[in-house]
Amino acid sequence: MSQVTAEITISLDGFAAGPNQSKDNPLGEGAERLHEWVFPTASWRGQHGIEGGETGPDDDAAAGFGRGVGAFIMGRNMFGPPGGGEWDESWRGWWGEDPPYHVPVFVLTHHAREPLTMEGGTTFHFVTNGIESALEQARAAAGDQDVKVIGGAKAIQQYLRAGLLEELQLHLSPILLGSGERLFEDVGDPKLEPVEVVAGAATHVTYRVG
Amino acid sequence: MSQVTAEITISLDGFAAGPNQSKDNPLGEGAERLHEWVFPTASWRGQHGIEGGETGPDDDAAAGFGRGVGAFIMGRNMFGPPGGGEWDESWRGWWGEDPPYHVPVFVLTHHAREPLTMEGGTTFHFVTNGIESALEQARAAAGDQDVKVIGGAKAIQQYLRAGLLEELQLHLSPILLGSGERLFEDVGDPKLEPVEVVAGAATHVTYRVG
Repeated sequence: MSQVTAEITISLDGFAAGPNQSKDNPLGEGAERLHEWVFPTASWRGQHGIEGGETGPDDDAAAGFGRGVGAFIMGRNMFGPPGGGEWDESWRGWWGEDPPYHVPVFVLTHHAREPLTMEGGTTFHFVTNGIESALEQARAAAGDQDVKVIGGAKAIQQYLRAGLLEELQLHLSPILLGSGERLFEDVGDPKLEPVEVVAGAATHVTYRVG
Repeated sequence: MSQVTAEITISLDGFAAGPNQSKDNPLGEGAERLHEWVFPTASWRGQHGIEGGETGPDDDAAAGFGRGVGAFIMGRNMFGPPGGGEWDESWRGWWGEDPPYHVPVFVLTHHAREPLTMEGGTTFHFVTNGIESALEQARAAAGDQDVKVIGGAKAIQQYLRAGLLEELQLHLSPILLGSGERLFEDVGDPKLEPVEVVAGAATHVTYRVG
């Protein structure tokens, strides 16, 4: 059955991005280390058109990224470029012409823009009337598949606070960032129950959200 | 071989204690929920002289508390009562006459006090000349067994920052406290590698500290 999930990597001290995010450093200072667990995996490499890579528990976790997902939702800064304001319409995301989504992606933004159709099945839709509307559109696009919110922190916070998430997968990277953007900031007190744990270079914990 | 370890429970948003710690509420508001994973376990109950309890992965994690430990180190507030200042010498800890340690316990404090011998093998030693001295004394007491730092957050922070910990076991409780005392505050950037993960009501992750 279709459900609403979220997936994000955080540091052990709770940051989803480092300080001073910019176009040159979209995840903030030091935060590329956050994602070190995923870059060597065969699944991540395959998703980005690179051959080879490692198998094992981290690869298993990476392989689940798009499995059963009929639509993604992301925040404006994850689509980029950071800084907000009106779109530079030449901006087509961080991922080149064939982004690793292959389904509709709904981008939360304050600035309207025509849908952007990429190669490989990804179309970015820009939603200016709030998270509920984005979810409604994503559900319609996903059919009987899942809708997955993939960040950044602020997008997941909004869905968590609104009680709209049914499942949250955290990749706990074994690093400390010390500062940056926290995932769990002003999200209320949702009921969380760990339902799956996978041990790898990161610790991958899936929570059912009550 | 003897090593220096630490063990503590934190919320998913990184707090080792809730806000407004007091004598009536030593773990702060809401923080008894932090430790909900351990109270039903047969091991915790046995350590506190209560019969019965549950077995399973959380019990396995709880059973490791004193295993191979020849001396504990704790902060002044963990011994209590909170508030600092001179000792009320009538205070004998939170645990009654037979505390669940059964080995020497070194308490980090600014106020000297004679050692306090309890039942069951626990003696509290009060160390006023710093964390290195406490560790040295604990090592001498532990012989070829481990020294374990068991909190609170500030005690573990000091050992982590000083590069004196070899292993850190975190019990990640599936709750959000929103505020309180964070474990990872001003601890630098130690190298951490997860070496054991146990899935239960909490997620128990042991990190090797490099």
